Amino acid sequence: MASSNKASGGSVGDEVITCPTLRSKLQARESPFLRGNYHGGGFTSDNDRVLLQSVYFADRHSAGNRSQDRLEALSVQMKKASFKNAAIDDATSDLLLSVPKYAIRAGARKRIYFDPKETRMAIVTAGAICPGQNDIIRAIVTKAFDYGVPEGHILGIRNGFRGFTNRTRRPMVLTHSMVKDCHLEGGTLLGTSNDPADIREIIKRLDLWKIDQLFVIGGTGGNAAAYAIQRECERCNVPTAVVGVPKSIDNDMLLFDKCFGFDTAVEGAQAALMAAKVEAASGYRGIGIVKLMGRRSGFIAVQASLASGVVDAVLIPEVPFRLEGEKGLLAYVEKIMARDGHAVICVAEAAAQDLMHGEGPRRLDAAGNPVLSDVGPWLKAKFKAHFQDADIKYIDPSCLIRSIPASSQDRIYCRMLGHGAVHAAFAGYTGVTVGLINTHYCYIPIPMVIQAPRTVDPHGELWARLRSAIGQPSFVDDEDEEFCPE
Amino acid sequence: MASSNKASGGSVGDEVITCPTLRSKLQARESPFLRGNYHGGGFTSDNDRVLLQSVYFADRHSAGNRSQDRLEALSVQMKKASFKNAAIDDATSDLLLSVPKYAIRAGARKRIYFDPKETRMAIVTAGAICPGQNDIIRAIVTKAFDYGVPEGHILGIRNGFRGFTNRTRRPMVLTHSMVKDCHLEGGTLLGTSNDPADIREIIKRLDLWKIDQLFVIGGTGGNAAAYAIQRECERCNVPTAVVGVPKSIDNDMLLFDKCFGFDTAVEGAQAALMAAKVEAASGYRGIGIVKLMGRRSGFIAVQASLASGVVDAVLIPEVPFRLEGEKGLLAYVEKIMARDGHAVICVAEAAAQDLMHGEGPRRLDAAGNPVLSDVGPWLKAKFKAHFQDADIKYIDPSCLIRSIPASSQDRIYCRMLGHGAVHAAFAGYTGVTVGLINTHYCYIPIPMVIQAPRTVDPHGELWARLRSAIGQPSFVDDEDEEFCPE
Amino acid sequence: MASSNKASGGSVGDEVITCPTLRSKLQARESPFLRGNYHGGGFTSDNDRVLLQSVYFADRHSAGNRSQDRLEALSVQMKKASFKNAAIDDATSDLLLSVPKYAIRAGARKRIYFDPKETRMAIVTAGAICPGQNDIIRAIVTKAFDYGVPEGHILGIRNGFRGFTNRTRRPMVLTHSMVKDCHLEGGTLLGTSNDPADIREIIKRLDLWKIDQLFVIGGTGGNAAAYAIQRECERCNVPTAVVGVPKSIDNDMLLFDKCFGFDTAVEGAQAALMAAKVEAASGYRGIGIVKLMGRRSGFIAVQASLASGVVDAVLIPEVPFRLEGEKGLLAYVEKIMARDGHAVICVAEAAAQDLMHGEGPRRLDAAGNPVLSDVGPWLKAKFKAHFQDADIKYIDPSCLIRSIPASSQDRIYCRMLGHGAVHAAFAGYTGVTVGLINTHYCYIPIPMVIQAPRTVDPHGELWARLRSAIGQPSFVDDEDEEFCPE
Amino acid sequence: MASSNKASGGSVGDEVITCPTLRSKLQARESPFLRGNYHGGGFTSDNDRVLLQSVYFADRHSAGNRSQDRLEALSVQMKKASFKNAAIDDATSDLLLSVPKYAIRAGARKRIYFDPKETRMAIVTAGAICPGQNDIIRAIVTKAFDYGVPEGHILGIRNGFRGFTNRTRRPMVLTHSMVKDCHLEGGTLLGTSNDPADIREIIKRLDLWKIDQLFVIGGTGGNAAAYAIQRECERCNVPTAVVGVPKSIDNDMLLFDKCFGFDTAVEGAQAALMAAKVEAASGYRGIGIVKLMGRRSGFIAVQASLASGVVDAVLIPEVPFRLEGEKGLLAYVEKIMARDGHAVICVAEAAAQDLMHGEGPRRLDAAGNPVLSDVGPWLKAKFKAHFQDADIKYIDPSCLIRSIPASSQDRIYCRMLGHGAVHAAFAGYTGVTVGLINTHYCYIPIPMVIQAPRTVDPHGELWARLRSAIGQPSFVDDEDEEFCPE
Repeated sequence: MASSNKASGGSVGDEVITCPTLRSKLQARESPFLRGNYHGGGFTSDNDRVLLQSVYFADRHSAGNRSQDRLEALSVQMKKASFKNAAIDDATSDLLLSVPKYAIRAGARKRIYFDPKETRMAIVTAGAICPGQNDIIRAIVTKAFDYGVPEGHILGIRNGFRGFTNRTRRPMVLTHSMVKDCHLEGGTLLGTSNDPADIREIIKRLDLWKIDQLFVIGGTGGNAAAYAIQRECERCNVPTAVVGVPKSIDNDMLLFDKCFGFDTAVEGAQAALMAAKVEAASGYRGIGIVKLMGRRSGFIAVQASLASGVVDAVLIPEVPFRLEGEKGLLAYVEKIMARDGHAVICVAEAAAQDLMHGEGPRRLDAAGNPVLSDVGPWLKAKFKAHFQDADIKYIDPSCLIRSIPASSQDRIYCRMLGHGAVHAAFAGYTGVTVGLINTHYCYIPIPMVIQAPRTVDPHGELWARLRSAIGQPSFVDDEDEEFCPE
Repeated sequence: MASSNKASGGSVGDEVITCPTLRSKLQARESPFLRGNYHGGGFTSDNDRVLLQSVYFADRHSAGNRSQDRLEALSVQMKKASFKNAAIDDATSDLLLSVPKYAIRAGARKRIYFDPKETRMAIVTAGAICPGQNDIIRAIVTKAFDYGVPEGHILGIRNGFRGFTNRTRRPMVLTHSMVKDCHLEGGTLLGTSNDPADIREIIKRLDLWKIDQLFVIGGTGGNAAAYAIQRECERCNVPTAVVGVPKSIDNDMLLFDKCFGFDTAVEGAQAALMAAKVEAASGYRGIGIVKLMGRRSGFIAVQASLASGVVDAVLIPEVPFRLEGEKGLLAYVEKIMARDGHAVICVAEAAAQDLMHGEGPRRLDAAGNPVLSDVGPWLKAKFKAHFQDADIKYIDPSCLIRSIPASSQDRIYCRMLGHGAVHAAFAGYTGVTVGLINTHYCYIPIPMVIQAPRTVDPHGELWARLRSAIGQPSFVDDEDEEFCPE
Repeated sequence: MASSNKASGGSVGDEVITCPTLRSKLQARESPFLRGNYHGGGFTSDNDRVLLQSVYFADRHSAGNRSQDRLEALSVQMKKASFKNAAIDDATSDLLLSVPKYAIRAGARKRIYFDPKETRMAIVTAGAICPGQNDIIRAIVTKAFDYGVPEGHILGIRNGFRGFTNRTRRPMVLTHSMVKDCHLEGGTLLGTSNDPADIREIIKRLDLWKIDQLFVIGGTGGNAAAYAIQRECERCNVPTAVVGVPKSIDNDMLLFDKCFGFDTAVEGAQAALMAAKVEAASGYRGIGIVKLMGRRSGFIAVQASLASGVVDAVLIPEVPFRLEGEKGLLAYVEKIMARDGHAVICVAEAAAQDLMHGEGPRRLDAAGNPVLSDVGPWLKAKFKAHFQDADIKYIDPSCLIRSIPASSQDRIYCRMLGHGAVHAAFAGYTGVTVGLINTHYCYIPIPMVIQAPRTVDPHGELWARLRSAIGQPSFVDDEDEEFCPE
Repeated sequence: MASSNKASGGSVGDEVITCPTLRSKLQARESPFLRGNYHGGGFTSDNDRVLLQSVYFADRHSAGNRSQDRLEALSVQMKKASFKNAAIDDATSDLLLSVPKYAIRAGARKRIYFDPKETRMAIVTAGAICPGQNDIIRAIVTKAFDYGVPEGHILGIRNGFRGFTNRTRRPMVLTHSMVKDCHLEGGTLLGTSNDPADIREIIKRLDLWKIDQLFVIGGTGGNAAAYAIQRECERCNVPTAVVGVPKSIDNDMLLFDKCFGFDTAVEGAQAALMAAKVEAASGYRGIGIVKLMGRRSGFIAVQASLASGVVDAVLIPEVPFRLEGEKGLLAYVEKIMARDGHAVICVAEAAAQDLMHGEGPRRLDAAGNPVLSDVGPWLKAKFKAHFQDADIKYIDPSCLIRSIPASSQDRIYCRMLGHGAVHAAFAGYTGVTVGLINTHYCYIPIPMVIQAPRTVDPHGELWARLRSAIGQPSFVDDEDEEFCPE
């Protein structure tokens, strides 16, 4: 009984998320791992598939039904996304509204489309720092050397896309000794920035420097730029493979099981919550408020609160709340204070934007991200006004969390993402990104993961787990009825 | 478009792993979460399903084909298992040889079969300590209180199954204040032991103490005992729900994505490898040897080595190796020493048993686990004899790793396992265990996960990733041909 | 040659810092450790002495001459102290201006002045939290039990001095099981507050609750209150021994080698500086600004910067600086940026108050501490205005640092402080505090350590070490000439 | 009142520990820090003094009397030392029996005796690894650059003294970039070894390579070699300044407040004790045995046990104990087991050698250190035999402790030691070592600190504190009477 026949019937092929390639423009050759260079575990077929959805709900009301359906979630979130990514044009976007069932499996292919000895690579890191960036750089470089790419052929672009054009920050040549221990330090050895990418200038440099493969480790903005670069390469007939590695410490990338660095960040965030607990419990009527990262979603806030076991209320952008009123947050914290003498509040940075600004459209920054007002001091002031005798401590640990080296699991994840990215490029894929789906590594076209942010579903399992674990009620009067079991 | 219709056709139901229940003997009632007690995220239907296999291989030779197929792996490993669990009798075992495609999803049910106000529970931890045990105890107790179980109704059995009968270690009553912060400490507040379970005596106590629900946090031995208790309960018509929570720091439980505490252990193991690297690199011809846990499998050794990036050779029980000869380990380490001046070796505790003892059958201990010879000192002596001028350091960090508190991700996992176990018992399931499959929580009949150990597939992706990452060759002359890509 | 004869001639006695006692009002008896109760290492004589000054300068210009002379430093700092402690009245203060050469050695005495079996104690923690508070509570309680104080006789006053009068926070009875593991958690199990002490009300409660010995773990404010309580006890003829344990995470207590919790805080602060370095080095023209604790002195900023090795400039309240001008901070950081591409600035919270407010007298809070403007955001804004293209990150890790459990060395220190405090009280001392001087534990009258803060001497060794280590120039035009070696 | 006049009268000069210099053979010149090169805090006079003894005992029986007298301790320990260092010949040794009262203060001198621009340095690390070695290397190199030593003039000798002669391990040139971040990693970047020093060959290389200043970071053996090198240099008229930096993770160097790396080691050791506690408390009749470093003394065992608060009995080489008998260790642990159900034992590696081997003279290794039998497995076996039903866990964390990077306080200490060593060499001192005495940095002739090991005084304060803290009785029948207070 070969398991491969499970994919029989061709039906799988029909429903797969296809990835763009450069193959028609390039010459195929054998992987060096086929003979000689040790590789390890055989090759992955282009036709291997990973199911996007591994759970089946028997009931429309089954817990997590809506949120756990990755495909539907994708469509739903795209439709309602208030800050749809401008880099994805409508044509592409429409295409994605009907999402196939399977993804292409990542891994080394038997046939590759670049001659490793001639291949020139560039790596760029963009956006805020995140645990694991150096691990990925290291994994890309060492895997490239495994393929046979010569030392001297791998450029590190410095400080994000700015490094393509900035004369004071010329690219650095990445060698084995430079990356050997780089994963032991936080941050990115290439430097980073949030500068927008000047696509035309970048194409010029890729051409000038003869870059065959460009790897972009970045967030939504970085991947959007990678996508734009790939489209422009296509338009200009520049045969550079562009591969993204999705970075989101907030874990707000669509489709993937999780983003690299997220586990590490949750560990750091959890420590901050414990500190807030100590402060609050030692104070007289102590209230600890911790602001955690989450520009569009509350994953860190939710998971760190779940892990810590010390949080009394969690505020995330996906779930509206009220401060005032009988069911409001302040009244709830009053009860907690009466019971325990102290309280700990965890707030994601994008929470309460509506309370601070009203419901109107938000201002976006250059990278298309919403400009956020600082919820931390605002919330502290509101608490200070309400609990006048309380000893309120406010903690913003974001910089401390971002800068730590990756945990072991993130380190392994990053290594696999880096390897997967190199395999993708050599296999001729372009405009793709790599990530874990149902515990398997997959390639996904970039637009699909960045068109809208992944968010905590207010009706989904994760939020329910948190509320159940800490006993948090709804802080609005008219809780969505679907939320209650029928 | 409800996603539930994806499970249409009834075909799902036909192929599901069924779980035994006590429902016919008990009276159903509404969950208290249906009204009043806050729960959170709706209920899970008994008919919700999780696919065991989410990857499809297009090619018989696709990387990881054999190992990634959970179902087939189960069959294969059962057939060839050299230390099949004696607690599983043949009838059951045969039944399991044909494994269905779906598992039952874990979660709160609308209908429960115990009246929370009358329910009495017992919790027991068995086997070696493991990060996260206290988290699970805490999760079970707090979720029980959420259901409405009265304080005073939850017994903690002390020091494993011994605590059912030992007069000097009477059960303790678990209260909210006892478990509130227990997750911050390592070990298990109940104490543990490897003592075999005296099934008849245990049944007597369950009956005497009127225990409705018994939770067993244990390894293969503990779950085998739980299974035996459940069978005996059935035979004696004692309506106690027996639910296991599978503990394996070695991560050698079948079917599940991972076992709780494993990530934490890998983090600790990785730190020991880094220490060995520092020792080796500082010594004159330094060789660091680290023995890591793994009584039947090499998962910790493989993952910690992958994460650390400092290991030169990994020895696990699943992959035979030779010390001597041109392709042997010693010759390979000679090359490493010539290149780097130092080397780091990571060995799982069950590796090299054949080299130490020959290929004959191994002796088993009372719990059915093989009695292992200590590979650490043996390997150190072999290296000392071969590299006479080398500075060899041997590290065994096992106790330090086992005793640390759980990481944040393990903490969350443990919480969900504990909640899932309580939901299972209230839903009338018995003889089941709970775990994560393709990122979803599921219930599985105990025999299915303990009948044989999960092992690192020498032809699978994990081992290939490691070999590829560290460049480790085969240390036997006649490497299995299938291993090489065709 | 017995060393004891070194103390011969009586001359030592003449120059010793004397400590007030209650002995004339109490009845002496033998220490229980003289027979039976195990104690350990013999007794300390009332006449044992510790030299306050162990260094002798051959030259007026010897490095650190002024600052290293504890006695002179005391006088100098008292005279020029801009925020002299109001609790110390002038009579006492004058007395202290001529400081003796020796301190009384701490330790168990053969003769004690309270019958342990009848002794009632109270412990209070006041001021901000600090690593080690629980260690000291634990040490006091366990040593009291060693003396033979009955369980039930030790009260924990809650939330600082407020706990003497607040009806909702009644004192708690401290038992062995309550303190057994309390040192593993940060903060203080008693709770704390900055509330001023109502001396009369406190005396009433001490009398009402029959407290024989009061232990105050607190900062300058807490010790000032302890001193006031002792004076009022004296006035009212209440024979309660009042013993302080000086708490200052900033390490700004006069005379002592260091304050408990300081080493732990430096470790935490150093981690924040490393995070700032990672952020700065990863950013495009990154500047990391870290604000560290130090309400009156810059010890944490200096030591953490020395330890980290990543800081480019350190700003402390003791050393004035200018932002603008050729020799100003901004110009210096420009040079660093040009050289390294990034910079890390460490600023103590009390630095730059003159730049923000001018040189006038500062406002004091209820506890007599100066009200500080927040230098962090101010400095960030100044840098933002000057380095417009820079990526500036600001970190305030104070809450995270304060709340961690103590390091091993702090743990040992705290244990000895707690034991020393109990020995002092039983020996009949009152109005004293305990600390380490030249590596020996001593008793010192409270006013002597709180009359003025200990500060980093701008001409002393510590500041010189830092400047030498990081190459920091003076940021004022007219550097004090004495600073330069002649 | 200038404190400098305290050193008046010349009396100090008469009683000072003098240090050998090369000044008569070299030409004095001004320190570059006198003009131009920034230094910081002025200069230290050759006549500045630090008192070795800062405590005065009023009573022969005062706690710690004997042990706290550094001078007398020195004499006493030398006389009774069973393993007196063979490298110190009798003439020198006799000289040291009468110890002066003052030490010379360390620090930069105004007059130096080497032209920095022409100075060539060599640095060697010898013996086992210890936290902080890289910090010291870094401090020496950076301070040398501060003096004006050119890049290229500083050699790192590899793998201890072996590196002077081994052709495969040529010296490395230490540059700024090599040492910049080296303190973030454990171990020593130079490598180390325990190989004996071939003095004549080393002198040849020093001459050949024109080394003006040799820095030896090593233990007793390394400093003995440094002393022998200095003597041979003197004999051969080679004007190389030889300066030691005393390394002893065991903290067994005479005179100094503490050795670098010790605090870090205690922290790591304490973590191992906590792990043993978790194992013991979780097991059924669990006993945790932790073996800690301490080849000649029990400082780590004592301090880590004091810090942890979880240890029931501590065994160190300085304090004999019996296993059997009514007052023996086993009987005591029986009582602990009866009371708590578990026990934790901490044993220093050199403890119980007499029980294992009888009282005869011990075998010495090449470096003059006693060859130790492994007390860990021996003790475990004894316990196993006695407590047959106990669950005994044995932990040896030494490698994990040695290899970690230094704590912040150790980092600062190492920096000062490295700076002090460079100042010593430029000031023309030779045959000296640097360390902290009564909180001040001092220079001491090498023989004085290595002639005998510093040990825990069984009648001293430290041991008394430990016994008092954990309530440990004597495990011999006839406890020394002096130990009991009269």
